[in-house]
Amino acid sequence: MRTQVAIIGGGPAGLLLSQLLDLSGIDSVVLERQSRDYVLGRIRAGVLEAGAVGVLEEAGVAERLHAEGQRHEGVELSWHDARVRIDLAGLTGRSVTVYGQTEVTRDLYAARDARGGQVIHGAEVLRIEEGQSDAPVVVYARDGVEHRLEARFVAGCDGFHGPARRAIPDAVRQEYVREYPFGWLGLLSRTPPAAPELIYAAHQRGFALCSMRSASLSRYYVQVPLVDRLEDWPTTRFWDELCKRIPGDVAARLVTEGEVLEMSIAPLRSFVCEPMRHGALFLAGDAAHIVPPTGAKGLNLAVGDVHYLHRALDLWFNHGRSAGIDGYSGTALARVWKAERFSWSLTSMLHDFPGLGAFERRMQQAEFEYLAHSEAAQKSFAENYVGLTY
Amino acid sequence: MRTQVAIIGGGPAGLLLSQLLDLSGIDSVVLERQSRDYVLGRIRAGVLEAGAVGVLEEAGVAERLHAEGQRHEGVELSWHDARVRIDLAGLTGRSVTVYGQTEVTRDLYAARDARGGQVIHGAEVLRIEEGQSDAPVVVYARDGVEHRLEARFVAGCDGFHGPARRAIPDAVRQEYVREYPFGWLGLLSRTPPAAPELIYAAHQRGFALCSMRSASLSRYYVQVPLVDRLEDWPTTRFWDELCKRIPGDVAARLVTEGEVLEMSIAPLRSFVCEPMRHGALFLAGDAAHIVPPTGAKGLNLAVGDVHYLHRALDLWFNHGRSAGIDGYSGTALARVWKAERFSWSLTSMLHDFPGLGAFERRMQQAEFEYLAHSEAAQKSFAENYVGLTY
Repeated sequence: MRTQVAIIGGGPAGLLLSQLLDLSGIDSVVLERQSRDYVLGRIRAGVLEAGAVGVLEEAGVAERLHAEGQRHEGVELSWHDARVRIDLAGLTGRSVTVYGQTEVTRDLYAARDARGGQVIHGAEVLRIEEGQSDAPVVVYARDGVEHRLEARFVAGCDGFHGPARRAIPDAVRQEYVREYPFGWLGLLSRTPPAAPELIYAAHQRGFALCSMRSASLSRYYVQVPLVDRLEDWPTTRFWDELCKRIPGDVAARLVTEGEVLEMSIAPLRSFVCEPMRHGALFLAGDAAHIVPPTGAKGLNLAVGDVHYLHRALDLWFNHGRSAGIDGYSGTALARVWKAERFSWSLTSMLHDFPGLGAFERRMQQAEFEYLAHSEAAQKSFAENYVGLTY
Repeated sequence: MRTQVAIIGGGPAGLLLSQLLDLSGIDSVVLERQSRDYVLGRIRAGVLEAGAVGVLEEAGVAERLHAEGQRHEGVELSWHDARVRIDLAGLTGRSVTVYGQTEVTRDLYAARDARGGQVIHGAEVLRIEEGQSDAPVVVYARDGVEHRLEARFVAGCDGFHGPARRAIPDAVRQEYVREYPFGWLGLLSRTPPAAPELIYAAHQRGFALCSMRSASLSRYYVQVPLVDRLEDWPTTRFWDELCKRIPGDVAARLVTEGEVLEMSIAPLRSFVCEPMRHGALFLAGDAAHIVPPTGAKGLNLAVGDVHYLHRALDLWFNHGRSAGIDGYSGTALARVWKAERFSWSLTSMLHDFPGLGAFERRMQQAEFEYLAHSEAAQKSFAENYVGLTY
């Protein structure tokens, strides 16, 4: 089989790239290891920057997002019962949209189906051959049979654990990593959210987050030690702990009697791979970088990468110019490092780090208090939260 | 001997308090362990916030400061050869004044002499008796003889190593401390400064600072390991190392052939003592808190404390109201924690920390790059650098 761009990974990054390329008249084939149901069963982030919404509009997949997504013009941070609302719209003229990543993925599958896009499920990529040439081949196994997908370029949209990044030789690849000494225990429940906007809650017991996916779907998180397992956290314990960490009046409005749809524990990690291009292979999204979920930058970064990569490939295929693909890694990484900085900084400020000294704990509190009282600090937070411009 | 306010410490904090109280018709006696020459021989910081200048004006000691001090409307940060100038005046409407702490102290001594202020040198404070009562007594030794200074209040302006803070019982006193794993090696030379404004230079070899005291006195610093001693640093090594860490064009303008007036190594420390008042005893300046020199907040915080304490004592003695002295600790500490946060944050961003991982080093670089490109971040930096308002 032959195509112009072989895309490894059928999550939002790969599907969005495939859709944008299609709209630019460029052929692609998406190889996804899992089934579509499995991909659509993953619960992920739910806050889209205005810039990401713009890219989804360009891809023609924003109709339901606009109908069902919630526009948020502010976000709250709390420190025990002290609170500050960051007026995103007032400070930046922009807002964010709450709309689950799962829904974005669903909309993208529908769009690809409507245009006859090729997504091959159950395709396990074995290796990339001739990745340095202008005729790379993605070799994959499906139902026990080996297949070859020939292309002009390969896009690795296959996440942190996927094979694409590892196809860049060790001698070329530089990886930056920071593992945080805690995880987030998340709970998705069929209940109205306790507060209309997200609340990032710092507390000496640990961080908590009140988030939502819709008017009837709440998403909550509590920071937990890395050794904790799901069986340590019956839902009653989860609700009790959450209530202790969030402001009292929010806890009083918390609805804990709805159906619990999902609970999971995820470790927190910062990760960047440089470069994001090697020969005919491009990386996008989690394949190249991971942010801790604080600040919800993961999906937004992936959309940013895809935006740049689509532009670069359009320039190459349709205008015969290589400036875009030559500049892709540098352009994408400049944005990535900015979001890594914000996610790391917010994570550092809001979490309880085991072994942190009394002075450093007071510094966390001082950061909160400075943010609460300085418009310049709020504007800096806001411009990062709504997303630095492309 | 009897006075209204016994002031321990004849550095800038104690002298300024004595002067302001005098102008409000309140008697005080200053006890200083060292000789005046010794006090005036100490080389300290040299950047005054606009608010601190205002307090010195109120004290009537700003004439020479205005005549000889250099008004700086900007400050620079560099990362290897990348530079960003923070337009303090444009971003905040305020500026800072470069005028050595030694000169401030000299002016204060002149003012106290002119008004017949009592400063007892060679007075070593042994203990504070009845510090919880309304008739505290400072017991001190001078020339081998024990003396008693009776007062209504005691102001501990005796620095980090002084006895005043330790007079607050351990059960009441909470101390927050952070020792940094490096020091600053400073060099004062009779040469014109290499650049018209301060340059805070981050570099993978370690931090450096180009500062000055006047048009003909330069002050430079390089970050050094804590184990280093002065004999490890002949001046030629100092200049060589400085040149490697600062931007190339600044290094090219560096004049290294002037008289070296002083070299010294100081460790970096963050420290806060809570509360800053216990009974009749008040702490001000380094007695209560230390900041690392990055950002030059030390003297400015001391002036802020003295400003609050003068107001509080004026309210008490001249208007019979205790609101000022009751609120002193909380009011002063709120400001202190903000400056501690800024000094800690700037120190963390600009220094090479032994053992820091590759990701964290990139985060330092990302902080610099964000500051270089975001007006909101620059405004936040600037409002802290010129000093948050009283």
